[in-house]
Amino acid sequence: MIIDCHGHYTTAPAQLEAWRKQQIAAIGNPGKAPSRESLTISDDEIRASLEGAQLKMQRERGTDVTIFSPRASAMAHHIGDESTSVEWTRVCNDLIRRVCKLYPDNFIGVCQLPQSPGVRPENCIPELERCVNELGFIGCNLNPDPSGGHWKEPPLTDRWWYPFYEKMVELDVPAMVHVSSSCNPCFHATGAHYLNADTTAFMQFMTSDLFKDFPTLRFIIPHGGGAVPYHWGRYRGIAQDMKRPPFSELLLKNVYFDTCVYHRPGIELLLKVVPVDNILFASEMVGAVKGIDPDTGHHYDDTRRYVEPIDWISAGDRQKIFEGNTRRVFPRFGKRTPREVNASARSG
Amino acid sequence: MIIDCHGHYTTAPAQLEAWRKQQIAAIGNPGKAPSRESLTISDDEIRASLEGAQLKMQRERGTDVTIFSPRASAMAHHIGDESTSVEWTRVCNDLIRRVCKLYPDNFIGVCQLPQSPGVRPENCIPELERCVNELGFIGCNLNPDPSGGHWKEPPLTDRWWYPFYEKMVELDVPAMVHVSSSCNPCFHATGAHYLNADTTAFMQFMTSDLFKDFPTLRFIIPHGGGAVPYHWGRYRGIAQDMKRPPFSELLLKNVYFDTCVYHRPGIELLLKVVPVDNILFASEMVGAVKGIDPDTGHHYDDTRRYVEPIDWISAGDRQKIFEGNTRRVFPRFGKRTPREVNASARSG
Repeated sequence: MIIDCHGHYTTAPAQLEAWRKQQIAAIGNPGKAPSRESLTISDDEIRASLEGAQLKMQRERGTDVTIFSPRASAMAHHIGDESTSVEWTRVCNDLIRRVCKLYPDNFIGVCQLPQSPGVRPENCIPELERCVNELGFIGCNLNPDPSGGHWKEPPLTDRWWYPFYEKMVELDVPAMVHVSSSCNPCFHATGAHYLNADTTAFMQFMTSDLFKDFPTLRFIIPHGGGAVPYHWGRYRGIAQDMKRPPFSELLLKNVYFDTCVYHRPGIELLLKVVPVDNILFASEMVGAVKGIDPDTGHHYDDTRRYVEPIDWISAGDRQKIFEGNTRRVFPRFGKRTPREVNASARSG
Repeated sequence: MIIDCHGHYTTAPAQLEAWRKQQIAAIGNPGKAPSRESLTISDDEIRASLEGAQLKMQRERGTDVTIFSPRASAMAHHIGDESTSVEWTRVCNDLIRRVCKLYPDNFIGVCQLPQSPGVRPENCIPELERCVNELGFIGCNLNPDPSGGHWKEPPLTDRWWYPFYEKMVELDVPAMVHVSSSCNPCFHATGAHYLNADTTAFMQFMTSDLFKDFPTLRFIIPHGGGAVPYHWGRYRGIAQDMKRPPFSELLLKNVYFDTCVYHRPGIELLLKVVPVDNILFASEMVGAVKGIDPDTGHHYDDTRRYVEPIDWISAGDRQKIFEGNTRRVFPRFGKRTPREVNASARSG
């Protein structure tokens, strides 16, 4: 089985964006805010949004199931206040549940969180519990910078985040560290902010004892880990200069990288330097890069084509990257089939 | 000849830091600020600071000359106001000139700029002119984020920076895009902020027409270009989706990457994906990583050892990386010897 651990619902029917626009227009004027129930999208519309996109690509590329979450760039936690974020998040997560219900073999849910700048992360616990316990989701996307490019929250290793981590540990769900759109004109979202956040998170983890406090807490750093594998020597060297423990002890039981790196030399580098147990297959399709690489004739984000032909890793290691590691990092997936995971949902 | 295009005076005698501390203590109390003349460092102290460090490493590693600038992390443009920055910058640049005068075969100067948050970049022109016209310097370090991790300045492609770029073009000097220390607790300086700035700058250049306005403006993105070469496919794909011109036309006549990547697989990736004409040899010693890699028995930052044995580039290409490209990107170096460059100084 090939599991793509990183996909967003970037192709949701237009009503979703219209609802969001209406919500944003009503900021400061709560009486005009749309109710969650006012969003009406039919099952057929959901099917149509996926059949020509994520499902088509799963079939064409030969991947089996996608761990699926709301569109990351649209989380936009910086817009409005906590109540704005709570409503928007619930709408988005409910839509993911509908996707998983319609295609229980193809998608497993991961939730957006109702973060808001300066608001304590434990306020996200009810939505995390709802998504995991009721909707059958297996993880969450945690935004280290809900300000959208101003980086005003404490580092991910600060005790500010600890109550939320306690709940993650209790529910046995990992988080993908994933920022949203940038409202800082310095940072292009997918070309700078995303990768910077990945790099930043790794360095925060490397310089802290977070995983002494939470030995079973797990994070996935997406987009191949930002700049980290390319600078693996730099990180090893800085850690050594700082007299930090070896990575194996410091963070490799807790921090994982996905394979959203859109060319063969990048994937080769990732597989050369990062231990195979820490690499999870992913493509983030349909996502940041939609085109076809004229050099290969294939989509840039068809990452299976980069991983598959690498012949200096064993079949067992390839299986870990494509399937085994993800099942291990998401214990609520574990040995179950996607259909079984989705059948565990109690509502939605 | 092997030219290291990226070195900072990280080993300056302790009086420099003491002077800076005194300056910072006097912020808000100008009468107590130290004069530039009050900093006294003897030639022998300068020699001692280099002989056991940069010069020793040049000899051991077989590099010939370092393009040398003040310590990047100490620029700290966010401290105090413009007058603080002007004084500190002048002190630091004058010290680089003394280094170059003492060792005219080993060092060529590049200047720090007296940037200050929110202050117009053209205010840096007098110091740039002084360093280039009087001290014989051949380039500058430009900080895209003088706020120190809060990213409040407009992007490097904004007209905000244009008057300074006009002067760079007139003087025919390139800038290395180099941030300083971070006062944002999210960002570790050398492990996150530096690399993020590199990535951010590339994306700013990629999405703008800056080089249509300034066809001969040149930037070096240090630290191997941050995350960029590792994500070369992502950048090619995003540019294609945005219908930007091909990189060869868009920025490869203007943007260069150094080789400050501290492991062999990283350097191999850089040389595989970035055109050889855009790669400048550098090590940033003595810099972010000081230790010896137990896997190789050599310093992490001994980057010559990674570049030299790569046998799938030609001798001509290797010469470009080690020497030719740097002479071309720094026309005030050009075909001259380092001694000739330094002899062009009119004062200092």
